[in-house]
Amino acid sequence: MSIITLTTDFGAADWFVGSMKGVILGINPQTTVVDITHEVPAGDIRAGAFALMAGYRSFARGTVHVAVVDPGVGGPRAALAVRTASCVFVGPDNGVLSWALRWEKVEEVRRLENADYFRHPVCPTFHGRDVFAPVAAHLSKGVKFDALGPLTGEWVNQPWPEPTAHGGEIIYIDRFGNAITNLREAATAVIVGGQEIPVRPFYQAVPAGQPLALISSTGLLEIAVNGGCAARGLGLKVGHVVNLR
Amino acid sequence: MSIITLTTDFGAADWFVGSMKGVILGINPQTTVVDITHEVPAGDIRAGAFALMAGYRSFARGTVHVAVVDPGVGGPRAALAVRTASCVFVGPDNGVLSWALRWEKVEEVRRLENADYFRHPVCPTFHGRDVFAPVAAHLSKGVKFDALGPLTGEWVNQPWPEPTAHGGEIIYIDRFGNAITNLREAATAVIVGGQEIPVRPFYQAVPAGQPLALISSTGLLEIAVNGGCAARGLGLKVGHVVNLR
Amino acid sequence: MSIITLTTDFGAADWFVGSMKGVILGINPQTTVVDITHEVPAGDIRAGAFALMAGYRSFARGTVHVAVVDPGVGGPRAALAVRTASCVFVGPDNGVLSWALRWEKVEEVRRLENADYFRHPVCPTFHGRDVFAPVAAHLSKGVKFDALGPLTGEWVNQPWPEPTAHGGEIIYIDRFGNAITNLREAATAVIVGGQEIPVRPFYQAVPAGQPLALISSTGLLEIAVNGGCAARGLGLKVGHVVNLR
Repeated sequence: MSIITLTTDFGAADWFVGSMKGVILGINPQTTVVDITHEVPAGDIRAGAFALMAGYRSFARGTVHVAVVDPGVGGPRAALAVRTASCVFVGPDNGVLSWALRWEKVEEVRRLENADYFRHPVCPTFHGRDVFAPVAAHLSKGVKFDALGPLTGEWVNQPWPEPTAHGGEIIYIDRFGNAITNLREAATAVIVGGQEIPVRPFYQAVPAGQPLALISSTGLLEIAVNGGCAARGLGLKVGHVVNLR
Repeated sequence: MSIITLTTDFGAADWFVGSMKGVILGINPQTTVVDITHEVPAGDIRAGAFALMAGYRSFARGTVHVAVVDPGVGGPRAALAVRTASCVFVGPDNGVLSWALRWEKVEEVRRLENADYFRHPVCPTFHGRDVFAPVAAHLSKGVKFDALGPLTGEWVNQPWPEPTAHGGEIIYIDRFGNAITNLREAATAVIVGGQEIPVRPFYQAVPAGQPLALISSTGLLEIAVNGGCAARGLGLKVGHVVNLR
Repeated sequence: MSIITLTTDFGAADWFVGSMKGVILGINPQTTVVDITHEVPAGDIRAGAFALMAGYRSFARGTVHVAVVDPGVGGPRAALAVRTASCVFVGPDNGVLSWALRWEKVEEVRRLENADYFRHPVCPTFHGRDVFAPVAAHLSKGVKFDALGPLTGEWVNQPWPEPTAHGGEIIYIDRFGNAITNLREAATAVIVGGQEIPVRPFYQAVPAGQPLALISSTGLLEIAVNGGCAARGLGLKVGHVVNLR
């Protein structure tokens, strides 16, 4: 049994994700393909890097994780496969893999240059279908990593916004309007836009409609409103400063 | 072969559903995970109860149905597994399971208190990933029901709006704008907002743009507009009264 | 191993797609069900025909492709299964299959009239669940094609807009706002709404924010904006004329 995950900005409206799955299953009918998300905002490498980082850690060792947020598709950017101590990542070399890689012991990085593992002809607008999907499928079947292309020791890094002693910032807003920060420590309270927000262990630990901060399922501090939408209710956006009390 | 279904309000934008699947497949790689829907409006237990009730009945005996619409996650609400004569339900004890259970012969209800079947550490904001997904996966592998936790004879019931002799109400509006009612009988016509709407067997039995009522795929009477959107065209909303003619 | 794909206008909000999968897996637990898309605009047969045509070709030989965009469900329109030299299509006889069939050598067309392969009772609003899903599942298990119903030599054709010597038109706009045309040839430039747009090999071959035309992953000429949304930026809509330079 092998698992391949997909994280993209392809959305649900078109056939793009289905095409990737068709190619994968055509090469390895035994694999299980799982969507992490396809609703990364179009071309938003940073949001894709966050979704991959947040999602991939729930999967078993040996999973092949494909991430395609790829505004430079068809151009000179490289394509990568990265083998770590626990799993494999496949995607464009534009930073979309890099936040997940911060959690991993990287063992081998290859540039995808062996076209034997591509779908042909390779369309310059859809490497998701023609490069990343088939490479992932071949890897899930046991193709040797060193067959994929030349070794490289470098990859494009999306800078991770390190928190300071005074606080951090909002780095992602989820579907519920919860604002996830780059802070890992739970203080007694945080201050956002002049408002002091208490740290509590779960949503209903404050009255309905009241804000709180808590450690989210990503391990990062999140600002929420019990039964409400913190992003709208508190006017929160990615990049807003969050001060520790 | 085992099947686990998922019904949640997690949406498609984030990694939440993918995380649940990663946990499930990590425990039971042989299971097939099927989405019923993840677009239950955030925190809307009633809509989740309806979607689960409408969807689960198309699945084979023995399926494990997980429903997570869980605004009280991390707080004092209980978590349940329910074994019926035909299948298993897993979810928070807040009513989201209760409309499906109206159709079932309930045989055994357990509170999920045996942490051996959880993912650790359990995050107080994401029992979908850390409690319900792993419990469902263990059940799909054959874990004994009585290992999950203590027996209980009670669960939170979402009241079902019973129709009266005069009529009923709209209880769900689907993606096409069809308004599903709590009525099971097809009269010759219904009256909604002062308008008489004829009962017909299929959508195109009335001219394009005209309203009709018909028995929907849930077995409940639905108000529709042929080729149109009844909710918008007729101004229908959940809770509106529908009178039998 | 067998694969069944689904292309519908059922959306993600309700349980419709999950119900189809439940029926399929109840009949053939060994099959893999893959979504092409469920976000075809409600009742838009033409958009469904395009998505199926664009998506199905990435799947292996022998795949069963189910397409359900079916505003005439329950009425007199026929239901079809079509066996071609490479795969099988199942859906209503309203044109939704016809653009894919333009690429195929059609070998046998049957009207779905043998109710032994339906789910019962057949709901007149949901043949996706009660007719097309079970027929596809039975086909994936090896049911003989001629058992499904009588042979037919005709099916409803959605007219394909053939380009002329002077140009063509926009036939689909994807999630990124790329406008796909019916043109297969790459000229040096196209003219849309009075604006000359150069043909280039990939998106970043023009500066950010600039328009270009390129051969898309469907094999058809697409009008895009590097890093932007051509539909919004250039005011493009389905049906707009595209002239060759």
